[in-house]
Amino acid sequence: MSKKKHRHLRKKGMPPGTLVYTGHRAVGEPLHVTTVWYGDEEHLLREHYAPEFVAKPEGVTWVDVRSLGNTEFIARVGQDFHIHPLAQEDVLDTQQRAKLEEYDNGLFFILHYLHLDAETLELSSEQLALFIGKNFLVSFQEDADDTFHDIRKRVCEGVGRLRRKNPDFLAYSMIDAVVDHYYLVLDELGNAIDGLEEAFHHKADGISPLDKARIFRMKRTASQIRHFLLPLRDATLRFYRSDSELIDEGTRLYLRDVSDHVTQILDSLDNSRDLLTNIESLYQAEVSNRLNNVMRLLTVISTIFIPLSFVAGIYGMNFDYMPELRWHYGYFTVLGGMLVAMIAMLWYFRRKKWI
Amino acid sequence: MSKKKHRHLRKKGMPPGTLVYTGHRAVGEPLHVTTVWYGDEEHLLREHYAPEFVAKPEGVTWVDVRSLGNTEFIARVGQDFHIHPLAQEDVLDTQQRAKLEEYDNGLFFILHYLHLDAETLELSSEQLALFIGKNFLVSFQEDADDTFHDIRKRVCEGVGRLRRKNPDFLAYSMIDAVVDHYYLVLDELGNAIDGLEEAFHHKADGISPLDKARIFRMKRTASQIRHFLLPLRDATLRFYRSDSELIDEGTRLYLRDVSDHVTQILDSLDNSRDLLTNIESLYQAEVSNRLNNVMRLLTVISTIFIPLSFVAGIYGMNFDYMPELRWHYGYFTVLGGMLVAMIAMLWYFRRKKWI
Amino acid sequence: MSKKKHRHLRKKGMPPGTLVYTGHRAVGEPLHVTTVWYGDEEHLLREHYAPEFVAKPEGVTWVDVRSLGNTEFIARVGQDFHIHPLAQEDVLDTQQRAKLEEYDNGLFFILHYLHLDAETLELSSEQLALFIGKNFLVSFQEDADDTFHDIRKRVCEGVGRLRRKNPDFLAYSMIDAVVDHYYLVLDELGNAIDGLEEAFHHKADGISPLDKARIFRMKRTASQIRHFLLPLRDATLRFYRSDSELIDEGTRLYLRDVSDHVTQILDSLDNSRDLLTNIESLYQAEVSNRLNNVMRLLTVISTIFIPLSFVAGIYGMNFDYMPELRWHYGYFTVLGGMLVAMIAMLWYFRRKKWI
Amino acid sequence: MSKKKHRHLRKKGMPPGTLVYTGHRAVGEPLHVTTVWYGDEEHLLREHYAPEFVAKPEGVTWVDVRSLGNTEFIARVGQDFHIHPLAQEDVLDTQQRAKLEEYDNGLFFILHYLHLDAETLELSSEQLALFIGKNFLVSFQEDADDTFHDIRKRVCEGVGRLRRKNPDFLAYSMIDAVVDHYYLVLDELGNAIDGLEEAFHHKADGISPLDKARIFRMKRTASQIRHFLLPLRDATLRFYRSDSELIDEGTRLYLRDVSDHVTQILDSLDNSRDLLTNIESLYQAEVSNRLNNVMRLLTVISTIFIPLSFVAGIYGMNFDYMPELRWHYGYFTVLGGMLVAMIAMLWYFRRKKWI
Amino acid sequence: MSKKKHRHLRKKGMPPGTLVYTGHRAVGEPLHVTTVWYGDEEHLLREHYAPEFVAKPEGVTWVDVRSLGNTEFIARVGQDFHIHPLAQEDVLDTQQRAKLEEYDNGLFFILHYLHLDAETLELSSEQLALFIGKNFLVSFQEDADDTFHDIRKRVCEGVGRLRRKNPDFLAYSMIDAVVDHYYLVLDELGNAIDGLEEAFHHKADGISPLDKARIFRMKRTASQIRHFLLPLRDATLRFYRSDSELIDEGTRLYLRDVSDHVTQILDSLDNSRDLLTNIESLYQAEVSNRLNNVMRLLTVISTIFIPLSFVAGIYGMNFDYMPELRWHYGYFTVLGGMLVAMIAMLWYFRRKKWI
Repeated sequence: MSKKKHRHLRKKGMPPGTLVYTGHRAVGEPLHVTTVWYGDEEHLLREHYAPEFVAKPEGVTWVDVRSLGNTEFIARVGQDFHIHPLAQEDVLDTQQRAKLEEYDNGLFFILHYLHLDAETLELSSEQLALFIGKNFLVSFQEDADDTFHDIRKRVCEGVGRLRRKNPDFLAYSMIDAVVDHYYLVLDELGNAIDGLEEAFHHKADGISPLDKARIFRMKRTASQIRHFLLPLRDATLRFYRSDSELIDEGTRLYLRDVSDHVTQILDSLDNSRDLLTNIESLYQAEVSNRLNNVMRLLTVISTIFIPLSFVAGIYGMNFDYMPELRWHYGYFTVLGGMLVAMIAMLWYFRRKKWI
Repeated sequence: MSKKKHRHLRKKGMPPGTLVYTGHRAVGEPLHVTTVWYGDEEHLLREHYAPEFVAKPEGVTWVDVRSLGNTEFIARVGQDFHIHPLAQEDVLDTQQRAKLEEYDNGLFFILHYLHLDAETLELSSEQLALFIGKNFLVSFQEDADDTFHDIRKRVCEGVGRLRRKNPDFLAYSMIDAVVDHYYLVLDELGNAIDGLEEAFHHKADGISPLDKARIFRMKRTASQIRHFLLPLRDATLRFYRSDSELIDEGTRLYLRDVSDHVTQILDSLDNSRDLLTNIESLYQAEVSNRLNNVMRLLTVISTIFIPLSFVAGIYGMNFDYMPELRWHYGYFTVLGGMLVAMIAMLWYFRRKKWI
Repeated sequence: MSKKKHRHLRKKGMPPGTLVYTGHRAVGEPLHVTTVWYGDEEHLLREHYAPEFVAKPEGVTWVDVRSLGNTEFIARVGQDFHIHPLAQEDVLDTQQRAKLEEYDNGLFFILHYLHLDAETLELSSEQLALFIGKNFLVSFQEDADDTFHDIRKRVCEGVGRLRRKNPDFLAYSMIDAVVDHYYLVLDELGNAIDGLEEAFHHKADGISPLDKARIFRMKRTASQIRHFLLPLRDATLRFYRSDSELIDEGTRLYLRDVSDHVTQILDSLDNSRDLLTNIESLYQAEVSNRLNNVMRLLTVISTIFIPLSFVAGIYGMNFDYMPELRWHYGYFTVLGGMLVAMIAMLWYFRRKKWI
Repeated sequence: MSKKKHRHLRKKGMPPGTLVYTGHRAVGEPLHVTTVWYGDEEHLLREHYAPEFVAKPEGVTWVDVRSLGNTEFIARVGQDFHIHPLAQEDVLDTQQRAKLEEYDNGLFFILHYLHLDAETLELSSEQLALFIGKNFLVSFQEDADDTFHDIRKRVCEGVGRLRRKNPDFLAYSMIDAVVDHYYLVLDELGNAIDGLEEAFHHKADGISPLDKARIFRMKRTASQIRHFLLPLRDATLRFYRSDSELIDEGTRLYLRDVSDHVTQILDSLDNSRDLLTNIESLYQAEVSNRLNNVMRLLTVISTIFIPLSFVAGIYGMNFDYMPELRWHYGYFTVLGGMLVAMIAMLWYFRRKKWI
Repeated sequence: MSKKKHRHLRKKGMPPGTLVYTGHRAVGEPLHVTTVWYGDEEHLLREHYAPEFVAKPEGVTWVDVRSLGNTEFIARVGQDFHIHPLAQEDVLDTQQRAKLEEYDNGLFFILHYLHLDAETLELSSEQLALFIGKNFLVSFQEDADDTFHDIRKRVCEGVGRLRRKNPDFLAYSMIDAVVDHYYLVLDELGNAIDGLEEAFHHKADGISPLDKARIFRMKRTASQIRHFLLPLRDATLRFYRSDSELIDEGTRLYLRDVSDHVTQILDSLDNSRDLLTNIESLYQAEVSNRLNNVMRLLTVISTIFIPLSFVAGIYGMNFDYMPELRWHYGYFTVLGGMLVAMIAMLWYFRRKKWI
């Protein structure tokens, strides 16, 4: 949260379009840039920014920028590829929602790569921005990890349809890879929920107060994932339906497919949330149930022994004239009466299923 | 859940459109394929895949593939009928939502056959995929059971309108049969709810903690069915409204009818869910009510006997000079006073309707 | 519920459009059919099915079929008036939602006549189906009661606008009569809710557990009525907005009016549901409140007498050397101290408004 | 409620469009009618119905009918101004929702004037109906109060734009006056809520069970207001957007403004409802909190004195051989031990913040 | 709330369009007006209202009015710039929702500048109104603070794109500045929520009743912010999509960006609200949990000591013939038995995890 605050304190009074990086990475981190140029038959790979590929009239140039600390470099790439200043600003402001924006010279797509820690259920996200032009694609990643390594490998090895298609298909492949990762995140969450449910049904001595905090964390995580997915669904849907001429008809079917996947993931997430709500209400019922049990025990004990104690108290009084005290079998009579009363009450509670 | 994970672990880095079966059936299970060709007057039936029917210029060819373990075979059928790779992939990925997709050469419909175990209320689902072309229909079923046996029989015997119509009507008949089965599932659920409600009103000693778990299971099942029905409603509606030239005007009325049925089922499901919510709140009220009863008993007993015990304690004190102790009828006076107090309190609690 | 199940067990494997009656009436019940033909100046009335009126080129023929046990007869009427098989099927399947369907030769309207038992709050419904053609109207009623007796009387006596209008106006009059009856049902429900609220505010000794069950029944009934009204609203709206040439411009204003009425009834129902929710939460608050009162009494009694009993217990100990016991006014001192403590505690609880 | 029932009992079997008054006023109440005709330069005012103004070719005629007991008169006015029978029926049926209806010769607007009793929070409503024609406006009010006195004064005095405009602007002025009154109603409600909240934070000894009933009444009132506002918003929006040629372009801006006001009021009402929900949950928390306090006191007292009483009981036993009883300082030792235990427990409960 | 009431009491009976200031500022406060005129190359700045700039044919004139107490002045400015009377009225009525209204000669935009007190979480708002004409912009601010100081500085210094653009871009810059401030407000709220959550997890002795009131205040604040944001989202969206010719195509991208920001803020607010709901349910669970703990302690103590006290009471009875009392080790036997029972019960409760 504090990052957001800094951002706007720094930015207040600046004209719109000023480039300021707002993410969690340290400013000045070394840049990782890979440039690939590929045509139907050949490809060229550079492990640095290769401005000489920018104006290549044919084939596709893909510049992959990892880590955003160097704003001057971002600005330079933006200038080389004529990326609109607002898009450049969005690349650096890593609190964006997923979206598709159409500019005169390209499409701008923002989405997030999620990671869920299976242990703590903490969700971390990395913002990815793609700018898709006529024969180039520039991708900006917040972190230095090479998320799209597999795709670059496929491009270089010429496997599948990638080499024969335009940058829109490359963008599709990248989005598809990121969306596929959402399944993993949902699986982690699903496993955690299953574990909780399992624990619920098997623990003989019921539930611990910790469970509540765990349900809370899961609900929060599910709600966070949902906040990433909802705009992503809109964005993929608009990508698929966009009438931009940068999108090939053949690619459109693939975009429909990835949009379908996002809907499917959202559906599955809603399922998980329903389940969590159900588990939470089970938890509440269990808590009530245990309170009932505690109160029942207290009531049984009190109902049996308080009246008996009273009787004992009666015969503990020191009146001079208490004829029962003189009877030879008075004590045993009283003991016997108490036993009978006790048994009667136990039988009554047993019939009421309290014990 | 673990299956999904495997899928994506296996698929990560693969190009899109790679065929991987993700269902619960063992890979390599024997294939069950039935091929039927029929025209207005005649029909041919083969209990295996009959590629010679593929290119028949007239009549309708229906290939029914049951169990999806053999991905090479799926790919071959896909190639023979020019099914798009993404559709092929969806056939094998059995975590799909119901949907209708339009391809250049056909309509692709996915839906699920549900089964509800009346005892455990566990819901199981089988994914069905239909590819409807100009004069053919290919159906893929996850399991080996011959779900569409009745329809094939009607085709072969030439009963009803089936033989005189195009593949769209065959598809309609299959969807209708599956949707009809949803009624049965809802009936099972409805019976279970009725049973629960009945039990609620008749059990003299109220409710057991088990009931809560049963309500929970029912709510979960209802929520799962809903997750199957919602996309199915969209899919049937889009089928009915599609302007594809593969759909005959005469068939459209039937598609409207089946779409209506799905809406009706959803409606009935919402009714059941309302009922479950109501029952749950009744359950909660009953739990509170019982806690109240327990506490009332405890309070009645304590309020009567704790003060009386105190009085008995008073006269159990060992002070040298306690004049009442010397009175001849002191003991009986105290006993009498206690009796009066007890009766007064009983009368008070009775008036307050506590006992 | 069991009826639905039977239906689909019977129907499974049958081609679509097979006529099977699924209602609660016994199959084979005697038919009640009334046929009316009317023009601007004259009318003819037959208390049976009069096929000779079917093809009359002018005027309006109204066939009113009551009870659906005889499926052959339904089929014959359907054939005479060219009613689509799917519409015929819907006439007999009495689990339909209200709807308007447009066929080539007519409009098909389904709605329900509701009856609410004021005592038990049980809701019963009768399905009505209207098929409106160019110069005829066929109405099918599930029960033998003559629901539309008043309308027929108006037709025969030539009162109002009915005689001068087309079948669409006759259909409007029938729908209006049914919708008017919904007001009565809502009034019954409203009265019951008022009674409950009244009881709530006046009962001195609060609420009985039975009230909860009554709230539950009311909520269920309201939810059922809603499930009838929601599709009816859509159906009347679509009727009013339909561009079918069977609907006269002059009638459209009347259809708008009846559609308005349905919206108004839904509104009033939502009001009732809000009220029920409010009453339920009042009930919960009352239950909590009473638990608080019970616990407060218990706490007051215990807090006063448990410490005093302890003091009495102290002086009931049998130590040889307990100087207070020897004091002459020891007993009265202790008694006085106890009295003071008791009064102090009573004052404290009074100040805290516990007693 | 009973009125509605009467209405439909009376109306059942009558043809649609029959005029029956359904409001709460006595039938036969004296009529109050004011007729105004005005042009740019002059105006004529009659304190009765002036049929001679009906057909005036220029200027605007405004007939204001107050109290609806005389149905013949309503019918006559309706005939004079060619008001559609269904609109006439709606004028008399005072259970209408706010709405705008377009007829061939005019616009028909229904809305309600609300009054909130600040003391009891009872909401009362008066239905107003406006029929706006080419150069006339007829307004029907349920009650005899002269709600539009100010507007008539402005018309007669020629203040503002009223005189220079068509009847649509007159209608706007009337709707605006009614909508302005909604602000007052919301203010009353807001004040009541503020008072409740204030009381909540200041009352030292917390809340009384009466508060719950007050929250309940407020929620019911808010819900009732909402049921008036929601259709009014739709009606004003449709008025503003209507393409009727009776609405001047210049007036449209004003209609947009009044529609904006209704939205603003709804917004403010939703704010109040949120606040009430919040207060209710605070109330619930306070009730739980007090139960906790009660139980805590009970537990502290019991935990301290029950074990000590037990110890006292031990030394009250009458065994022949109990060496401690013979010790000279036995009594004081036990008393001292008890004191230490008591202090220890008090310290423990203090640390746990129970006391 | 009382302000609103005054407003309408004062305004009742007045014609629409009467200018009455309804804000919280004192009427008659000194005016602060700044007038700027700027072209591509030059600018003129006056610290007062400069009517000579009104009709300048080229460049942009920006009049910034701060504090609204002087209604005559507002009316004069309105007249000079031909601002519609309804817009003038809205400028002064500071209970408006954010909105965009299109008039013949300009666009009228209302939005609010929010401030959140970090300590008390009280939200204060200042209404801002912008009237954007062909070559002028008039801004009205409720308070005297110079909210747009930075923007004016940029205009004067010629930094960024401001000087080269039309008034629409100036309006965009102002809206963007206000929206940027919403981030700060959300950060404050987020920090407060984080603090609450932190406190929740770390406080050993749990929660105080004060926390509930704090959650309540946060929910109320979040709900208030939401009531400002929802209409603002609509307004910015309509601004961006407006087909008014006052909006330059180049500015449209910027408007899309600010509309995006509002959506993002709403999203983040919904996140906060979800979190608050979760925390509240955690709080409820914690309260239940503590009640359970209290009851458990009471039950443990009672279950152990009440039966033992009963046994002690038995041997405190004064029967003549009680053989155990004569046994030499009777006392120690009983004490031993009690010890064994106590240990057994402690072990039982430990196993049940009650202690």
